Amino acid sequence: RIMRPDDANIAGNVHGGTILKMIEEAGAIISTRHCNSQAGEPCVAALARVERTDFLSPMCIGEVANVSAEITYTSRHSVEVQVNVMSENILTGAKKMTNKATLWYVPLSLKNVNKVLEVPPIQYARKEQEDEGKKRYEEQKLDRLETKQRNGDVILPVINPEPHTVGYSQSSLIHLVGPSDCTLLGFVHGGVTMKLMDEVAGIVAARHCKTNIVTASVDAINFHEKIKKGCVITVSGRMTFTSNKSMEIEVFVDADPFVDEPRERYRAVSAFFTYVSLSKEGKPLPVPQLLTETEDEKRRFEEGKGRYLQTKAKRQAQMQQAAQQ
Amino acid sequence: RIMRPDDANIAGNVHGGTILKMIEEAGAIISTRHCNSQAGEPCVAALARVERTDFLSPMCIGEVANVSAEITYTSRHSVEVQVNVMSENILTGAKKMTNKATLWYVPLSLKNVNKVLEVPPIQYARKEQEDEGKKRYEEQKLDRLETKQRNGDVILPVINPEPHTVGYSQSSLIHLVGPSDCTLLGFVHGGVTMKLMDEVAGIVAARHCKTNIVTASVDAINFHEKIKKGCVITVSGRMTFTSNKSMEIEVFVDADPFVDEPRERYRAVSAFFTYVSLSKEGKPLPVPQLLTETEDEKRRFEEGKGRYLQTKAKRQAQMQQAAQQ
Amino acid sequence: RIMRPDDANIAGNVHGGTILKMIEEAGAIISTRHCNSQAGEPCVAALARVERTDFLSPMCIGEVANVSAEITYTSRHSVEVQVNVMSENILTGAKKMTNKATLWYVPLSLKNVNKVLEVPPIQYARKEQEDEGKKRYEEQKLDRLETKQRNGDVILPVINPEPHTVGYSQSSLIHLVGPSDCTLLGFVHGGVTMKLMDEVAGIVAARHCKTNIVTASVDAINFHEKIKKGCVITVSGRMTFTSNKSMEIEVFVDADPFVDEPRERYRAVSAFFTYVSLSKEGKPLPVPQLLTETEDEKRRFEEGKGRYLQTKAKRQAQMQQAAQQ
Repeated sequence: RIMRPDDANIAGNVHGGTILKMIEEAGAIISTRHCNSQAGEPCVAALARVERTDFLSPMCIGEVANVSAEITYTSRHSVEVQVNVMSENILTGAKKMTNKATLWYVPLSLKNVNKVLEVPPIQYARKEQEDEGKKRYEEQKLDRLETKQRNGDVILPVINPEPHTVGYSQSSLIHLVGPSDCTLLGFVHGGVTMKLMDEVAGIVAARHCKTNIVTASVDAINFHEKIKKGCVITVSGRMTFTSNKSMEIEVFVDADPFVDEPRERYRAVSAFFTYVSLSKEGKPLPVPQLLTETEDEKRRFEEGKGRYLQTKAKRQAQMQQAAQQ
Repeated sequence: RIMRPDDANIAGNVHGGTILKMIEEAGAIISTRHCNSQAGEPCVAALARVERTDFLSPMCIGEVANVSAEITYTSRHSVEVQVNVMSENILTGAKKMTNKATLWYVPLSLKNVNKVLEVPPIQYARKEQEDEGKKRYEEQKLDRLETKQRNGDVILPVINPEPHTVGYSQSSLIHLVGPSDCTLLGFVHGGVTMKLMDEVAGIVAARHCKTNIVTASVDAINFHEKIKKGCVITVSGRMTFTSNKSMEIEVFVDADPFVDEPRERYRAVSAFFTYVSLSKEGKPLPVPQLLTETEDEKRRFEEGKGRYLQTKAKRQAQMQQAAQQ
Repeated sequence: RIMRPDDANIAGNVHGGTILKMIEEAGAIISTRHCNSQAGEPCVAALARVERTDFLSPMCIGEVANVSAEITYTSRHSVEVQVNVMSENILTGAKKMTNKATLWYVPLSLKNVNKVLEVPPIQYARKEQEDEGKKRYEEQKLDRLETKQRNGDVILPVINPEPHTVGYSQSSLIHLVGPSDCTLLGFVHGGVTMKLMDEVAGIVAARHCKTNIVTASVDAINFHEKIKKGCVITVSGRMTFTSNKSMEIEVFVDADPFVDEPRERYRAVSAFFTYVSLSKEGKPLPVPQLLTETEDEKRRFEEGKGRYLQTKAKRQAQMQQAAQQ
């Protein structure tokens, strides 16, 4: 679809959240179709996890996004989908890769949303594809358990914070879940949640560096719990780490099922977003360093540095490998 | 309502699809109101057909659209509505006619969507109005049968197409039908479908000529089958014909009721859109000629030429008539 | 236009904010048209104030809103507009008055947004109409000055609040101002701001009483300062008063012009919203009493009680007057 003014920030760069929402919609369609391809109980595929994804180049207003999706692995109860986004300037014909993402879905019964159904197996062209898929499946399963523990944390308000401290840029928004946010089952689309998360992370980043900012990457996101229509969700973000030219923001999504349900507020999703600041010519700008004050902030900064260095090392290894081939 | 940046392309011209959507909403309101004006089973008017319509002058961001609708004929089971769209520049006060359209609706029972109810007859000021209406009714009925046959065609992807060929500009999008796309009966509003069709046709036209393009006219559209909430619809478009200054694009809408229904994908709507390319001053530009390769493409080009010459002849006849009066 | 699922809460009642947005759009169109009706500098009418308005009966999904607007007074630099909203059930044909509102606009030059232009005078049918209009004009001018002083207040976060305290239900959201939120001058439409205010007030009310709630009335709203495209706005609400069957919520809108402007955050708008809680049959339910803790909270509760009693007395006087006629 064509990118519109509302899909973009004031500098004309399309929000990462808009792209994440399109990716998730494509993933949900292909996996729902696959899971209903054999006779049996009708179901809807619900997003369980998105793997780490990099935004390779910013998309602009007026460009057309081409989204393609393919099922790359099936376990007994889950589907792995690979989604590619190409942006095309229809005036010049130029195309570039914007984003590649891997998503995991589970089929939930239309009749009973708490029942996970079985996934029809796919055929692999080569045996290795199945083995590699299985390895990815095991890895993400482990990681999902880990993040569940990190989730207890809460973002507390700070009164009269200094510029460039964590408290200064932290932000939160509330959103009442309406019908168009939801799937047929009455639960929020994963893509809607990711769009709101990107919105908050973007505001945190802009408050910190007061320039035009764009999403550079998103860490793996796990969807621990479904969010129902009529809930109020609170999406909050705080900066955890800055390198010379990037900012890492942690985002939490909490759901408040306050109408006609006795349940307490719960943590539904959490993730790390990385942003860069761009000059008017689209070049990355230096970012003011984050001032950490409390012990927790210092610890989170160090953890963020760890993730940053690890990603950097991985990317260098990949580039070396590519150079040797 | 005021036209917003989201309603328009990057040159500020309002999408034909936005106007079609407003027209259909007005038509649905007036015909639903009429069909419920007598005691009896409550019903909702569903769009069956839109007659060929010309976009007389482009509308711009910031202008106000005034939409007025009138019922001009009723048969036993259908209502003909005439809708006029005037655009008003509220800064200068200038008004101009943007579009006139004729739509046909049928009343479907709220309790049983497969039951078509009877339409209360309207009073005609003059007997001739009724006769002319009846003639229009018979004509559209014939035409509806004809297009039903053409519907089998499918748009297949082409790999590495040359510029200006049919394969080069053909495009498609998928859309998951959500609650706000639907009427009270849970079926997609005709206006929503037409907006998506215009979006695809616009992308095809822009890919072909790589300039600012606007909708010039839409051929009669027949809505053969309803599309239900939860369906995935695929909207695909391909260029069929180019004259010196216009492009004709054929658009298909296919519905995939993949959840909870055993039904196969089916063709729901098809139509021809005509686009023109505009210079920065708003003057029509020459269009690169369409390169036809296969026999089918050549045949469709000739058919398109037929429609083009027929429309041109009709318009000239009307202008002569107007000049003689 | 037809009310859609997205315009309503889960019980099917249309959000007061959706109605306020439609009212403001109608007011902006008619007053911009009027202010440009004489030769001179082109201008856009900006919302300066909305008088207190009552929601007389809830509107539902599927109903059609008919909005009509009329200019009722002009001073040298401002226009008073009266807007009426009727809701129509197109299935039964039943119509009822939903809302009457009075809005004040000022014409700002298209070339220089800081320049307020002169308003062409309207003709009054009777001399008394002009006198009454002048009286309303003087009253609102006074009131605008008063609220400007109240504006210093800030809503501070509360950690681990008890149910039914002020801190328990207070809420805030952030919103990045995009192109479709804005007028031709690049400033947020008053109606967009009011819709966000109603959204926050509704969440505060629902958090307090955990039932289906609807907007009953909105106190006069003054728009002290314009909000520019690209700003982040923070909309925060806290409960100030509860009667047996109603809740009063104070809402603040603060603007943060953080990108490419050196300006500090400023208070742009503030207002009081009154909500009632409805049973499944649409009857008003008793509301849990607000627990006030601090001196400020107790003072605000008493002020709210004053407004409540004043409104109640006014309404009784009007009903007696109506009964005597």
